[in-house]
Amino acid sequence: MSIIKTVKELEAWSKNADRKTSTLGLIPTMGYLHEGHCSLIRAAKSENDLVVVSVFVNPTQFAPGEDFESYPRSIERDYKLAIEAGADVVFNPETEEVYVPGSSTFVEVTGEITRKLCGASRPTHFRGVTTVVNILFNIVQPDKAYFGQKDAQQAMIIKKMVRDLHMPVEVVVCPIVREADGLAMSSRNVYLSQEERKQALCLSGGLKKAWEYLNSGAEDSRSVKKLIEIIRNEIEGQSLAVIDYVMILDGETLEEIADIEPGKNALAAVAVKFGKTRLIDNRVLSVEAR
Amino acid sequence: MSIIKTVKELEAWSKNADRKTSTLGLIPTMGYLHEGHCSLIRAAKSENDLVVVSVFVNPTQFAPGEDFESYPRSIERDYKLAIEAGADVVFNPETEEVYVPGSSTFVEVTGEITRKLCGASRPTHFRGVTTVVNILFNIVQPDKAYFGQKDAQQAMIIKKMVRDLHMPVEVVVCPIVREADGLAMSSRNVYLSQEERKQALCLSGGLKKAWEYLNSGAEDSRSVKKLIEIIRNEIEGQSLAVIDYVMILDGETLEEIADIEPGKNALAAVAVKFGKTRLIDNRVLSVEAR
Repeated sequence: MSIIKTVKELEAWSKNADRKTSTLGLIPTMGYLHEGHCSLIRAAKSENDLVVVSVFVNPTQFAPGEDFESYPRSIERDYKLAIEAGADVVFNPETEEVYVPGSSTFVEVTGEITRKLCGASRPTHFRGVTTVVNILFNIVQPDKAYFGQKDAQQAMIIKKMVRDLHMPVEVVVCPIVREADGLAMSSRNVYLSQEERKQALCLSGGLKKAWEYLNSGAEDSRSVKKLIEIIRNEIEGQSLAVIDYVMILDGETLEEIADIEPGKNALAAVAVKFGKTRLIDNRVLSVEAR
Repeated sequence: MSIIKTVKELEAWSKNADRKTSTLGLIPTMGYLHEGHCSLIRAAKSENDLVVVSVFVNPTQFAPGEDFESYPRSIERDYKLAIEAGADVVFNPETEEVYVPGSSTFVEVTGEITRKLCGASRPTHFRGVTTVVNILFNIVQPDKAYFGQKDAQQAMIIKKMVRDLHMPVEVVVCPIVREADGLAMSSRNVYLSQEERKQALCLSGGLKKAWEYLNSGAEDSRSVKKLIEIIRNEIEGQSLAVIDYVMILDGETLEEIADIEPGKNALAAVAVKFGKTRLIDNRVLSVEAR
């Protein structure tokens, strides 16, 4: 396995690897890999000849005052985990390699899909994400790129960018990987105190309760208002939890809906702060069309 | 030669053409080809195995009230001229082929480079240009793409987009092609009345006079203020000409400058309206470093 730090080296590796007869899977991450990332790397390995993991911590998706400086980094551990999961290359570039001096070009998906959920509380976040993913796609030129359902809105936005711009990449979205007790894996989980870690179960717990109620057969079981109430109650029961949002939206467009329509996917999504740590989780809600 | 109307057909052609062992040059145009476009096609033919000419008239680079509907179109003539100049494929897609339903992703180069000159009077124009060129690059996947120096600002912006986003394309900029009397070739020249056509020589004429004065050895020959005055005088001498802008800017960044610095390129650029017809022209101004 190689550790590659520059675009030039990556291009040289790409030439040597004879990309013309081999397929390549890319996993864009911000490093500090956990089992969620590793599941993406394994999926990529099973579907491609070559696997590249990017661990670039992208400054443009953090707003001033967010945790860019303190974002957890652990390059040696990342290399080890990426190897074990099947990566051929870990791409760990400096900021100036990705954003050339004087860089001022942005790729932006507009509309409800970027304004809702995390887009509301982090207005420039997704522009940073789509720009860096676009750049990484151009540098690495993968056949397939792998993203986690944990960041459901991000995955939807990237799929839309790829479709709208006709990018020659297939976007693969893999299921959320959870701790044994249900907490969705996240690089930011290390920020949590012991008590916060306990209380953080209210995210997955609330989502699970909503899913159970949806399938309970109760008269108002498809009511978005009712389901949101169930999730909020679960989270508000925790003393350290501060809700950023609890929303249930159309699973394709992120437009607001009043009821879970049979045969259509809805996305129940939550963001909750524990002190300075902001956690997100989500669950696709659906009932079969009769 | 093929006429291709869909992305699917273009991909099929691309597969058949064995892109893995051949190079491809793309000339993105809005059709109504003239000798300027043909010079780009010939340049592409001399440097690539395959040549694709796009004649898509891109709605997103026109503002409401501009000439999108009336923009001159002549597909049969375009096919003939493209063949003669060496094209293998003319790509003539419907709007829905390029912009998929619900499309809302934009590629935008920010900063002085898009705010100045045509960016000032056409604030959404370049966002439309960079978005469509990005899409065409993704669909056609050229090795090289050819643009005319006639649209000097556009060429600079596309070069910057390609560099900032690390797009795997080489941008080639070819010289302005002029009518025998000096008028820069443009699809919009057909809009001009006989009298307007005569008076339109003030664009190239004014730029030429500025260039002559710069090389005259006069004490203020490098003064941007003086050189602009020379160009304005020439244009204002024509009864039907209405100046949109006359500017001389840094040739790399489009930032304002006071003098032509020896050894550095400046761009003298003009936009002039004759009735509803807006013409542009430009000339690179430079004096040797001593």
